[in-house]
Amino acid sequence: FEKIGNMVVGAARNAKKLGEQDPRRIVHSFKVALTITLVSLIYYFDFLYDGFGVSAMWAVMTVVVVFEFSVGATIGKGVNRGVATFLGGALGVGAHRLAVLTGEKAEPVILGLSVFLISAAATFVRFFPKLKKRYDYGVLIFILTFNLITVSAYRDEEVIEMAHRRLSTVMIGGSASVLICICIRPVWAGADLHNLIATNIENLGIFLEGFGREYFEMANDRKRENKASLDGYKTVLNSKSTEETLGNSARWEPRHGKFRYRHPWDQYLKIGNETRACAYRIDALNICLNSETQTTMEIRRKIQEPCMQMSLECGHALKELAKGIKTMTRSSSSGPHIENAKIATKNLETLLQTGLWSETDLLNAIQTATVA
Amino acid sequence: FEKIGNMVVGAARNAKKLGEQDPRRIVHSFKVALTITLVSLIYYFDFLYDGFGVSAMWAVMTVVVVFEFSVGATIGKGVNRGVATFLGGALGVGAHRLAVLTGEKAEPVILGLSVFLISAAATFVRFFPKLKKRYDYGVLIFILTFNLITVSAYRDEEVIEMAHRRLSTVMIGGSASVLICICIRPVWAGADLHNLIATNIENLGIFLEGFGREYFEMANDRKRENKASLDGYKTVLNSKSTEETLGNSARWEPRHGKFRYRHPWDQYLKIGNETRACAYRIDALNICLNSETQTTMEIRRKIQEPCMQMSLECGHALKELAKGIKTMTRSSSSGPHIENAKIATKNLETLLQTGLWSETDLLNAIQTATVA
Repeated sequence: FEKIGNMVVGAARNAKKLGEQDPRRIVHSFKVALTITLVSLIYYFDFLYDGFGVSAMWAVMTVVVVFEFSVGATIGKGVNRGVATFLGGALGVGAHRLAVLTGEKAEPVILGLSVFLISAAATFVRFFPKLKKRYDYGVLIFILTFNLITVSAYRDEEVIEMAHRRLSTVMIGGSASVLICICIRPVWAGADLHNLIATNIENLGIFLEGFGREYFEMANDRKRENKASLDGYKTVLNSKSTEETLGNSARWEPRHGKFRYRHPWDQYLKIGNETRACAYRIDALNICLNSETQTTMEIRRKIQEPCMQMSLECGHALKELAKGIKTMTRSSSSGPHIENAKIATKNLETLLQTGLWSETDLLNAIQTATVA
Repeated sequence: FEKIGNMVVGAARNAKKLGEQDPRRIVHSFKVALTITLVSLIYYFDFLYDGFGVSAMWAVMTVVVVFEFSVGATIGKGVNRGVATFLGGALGVGAHRLAVLTGEKAEPVILGLSVFLISAAATFVRFFPKLKKRYDYGVLIFILTFNLITVSAYRDEEVIEMAHRRLSTVMIGGSASVLICICIRPVWAGADLHNLIATNIENLGIFLEGFGREYFEMANDRKRENKASLDGYKTVLNSKSTEETLGNSARWEPRHGKFRYRHPWDQYLKIGNETRACAYRIDALNICLNSETQTTMEIRRKIQEPCMQMSLECGHALKELAKGIKTMTRSSSSGPHIENAKIATKNLETLLQTGLWSETDLLNAIQTATVA
């Protein structure tokens, strides 16, 4: 009993932490519950239920499956599901017509064959990388709807009626989800992507600012304090899939806040890639910190000043860039920092090549940022 | 018309390429189609259809949704769906009982409230990282089934009957999918993960073997040939999400081939992480190749011999490791290479620190590999 009690307490603590980390999660849960309850009202009112009958459950199902955390993902899934239901239903009705035309005996054969062939073809289509990225869910629903309509057609002659009911209930569920998702405290994937990219660049900046101090102080055998604060860049290394998901969702979103409809989300992903490439270099630099073989003190003293200045200026420049992206202004103040960093690099170049890698990539990132 | 024709030709060419790259994709498509067709036979035979009625469509739906490319993913989804349908159905029947007990007037209120509360709670639970990783689909299906049963209960009094029919059709669809997935040319996520890890390590080895030659030849201004063959390591950088998906799926798989039931898949993910960390360093080394600022010839000549030997031996060792993993034997031949690499590193250490990073991580990777 005590074990179970501990588990419950642990779970409650986890839940509280999750909610505190991002209160939008709690709002999201209530939004989903509200939409499901609203849509399930179809069952309670006779005049609605008479129109749809048992098909009303498709509306509830659609809400459960389509309602995602961000507006973009919800719209994307809703549109995918709506269009796929329409296409699958239409093709299903077509297959049924064809089967009826060929006579009663051939009907089950034709229906079975069309189920087999269309399913195989559509399943294979899901492997196309481009389709998989944005329309995978749509193709899945297409297979589903087509098969449901075609297979039911053997038992139920009112095929068009059935396809129509299914389409309209899916539409009701989908549009209810999208409406509630947008109207009550919307979570925009675009804004999230924007902030993620800026925070990532900022993290790299923080690391570089602290790196010089850390590296040379450690040589003097001081204690490794504030080490954890430099580890922020590590989340950047594996942020690719998060960024791509957000980017995909963001494409579906209408104009909102500071973002236009066709905001250049691709540029964000490009900056994200450059940032990540930069993070790889920084990870390599970080190994220096932990490496046990250290340069001799003589060399160290020689390179200390330019190295520290370079990493400091790089860090400043990255932080300025991040600030500029966050406020969506072209920051003029990062310019001098970059210049300073370049000068410091020049000084160092004659001494050592190590630090240069992060620099070259920083410049790449800046070019992309300026284009965006 | 010509445009459409071109598009069709292009798509066909793409499809052919996809099929050639991995013929298992074609087999998979036909497996899915076969299973759907088999399950849809329920509709055609009267004695089966009389038992299930319209619920038979749940079986078709289950196949479409549950059938995944690898055996592990299919079993995982099937088990998730089965258990979730059972739990959701049971709780739905419970909610209905409770509502009936409170009297006819309060019934819709109780039902509505339970739908709202359970949906909100379950949606929030989906944010728990541990649950999200393996049971996200199950929680989704739980919400779905609970709502369908509870909401329908208001119209249809035979709640238990309905829940039972839904559960048994889901079971039929799920087990048909799992059976066909295992029996006809199974695709094991575990074997895929195994090969992926080995190939990744091999790619790093190929790079390191070629790196020394490439770096010092370039200095002599030869043409950059074979450059592309060294870029294999780049896929390693972003393999994390693929590895985790495969690892999750592999956990569901029964004993097969050379793999036991509780194969230490976690170790694979650890090796994968080390390999990736190693790839980050290698990416940093690669920048050296492209960097325009080059070390002076004097230094270059000094370090050439130990550098080349080190990268060559590192590469050999990694390739041996990859071979060892592929054949699942502990390779003894990688030992000497590692020793040679260590000696070469020692020689180089007094000259330069740059190359050391890849070395330290190589050792990490080896430790993990030996544990596995």
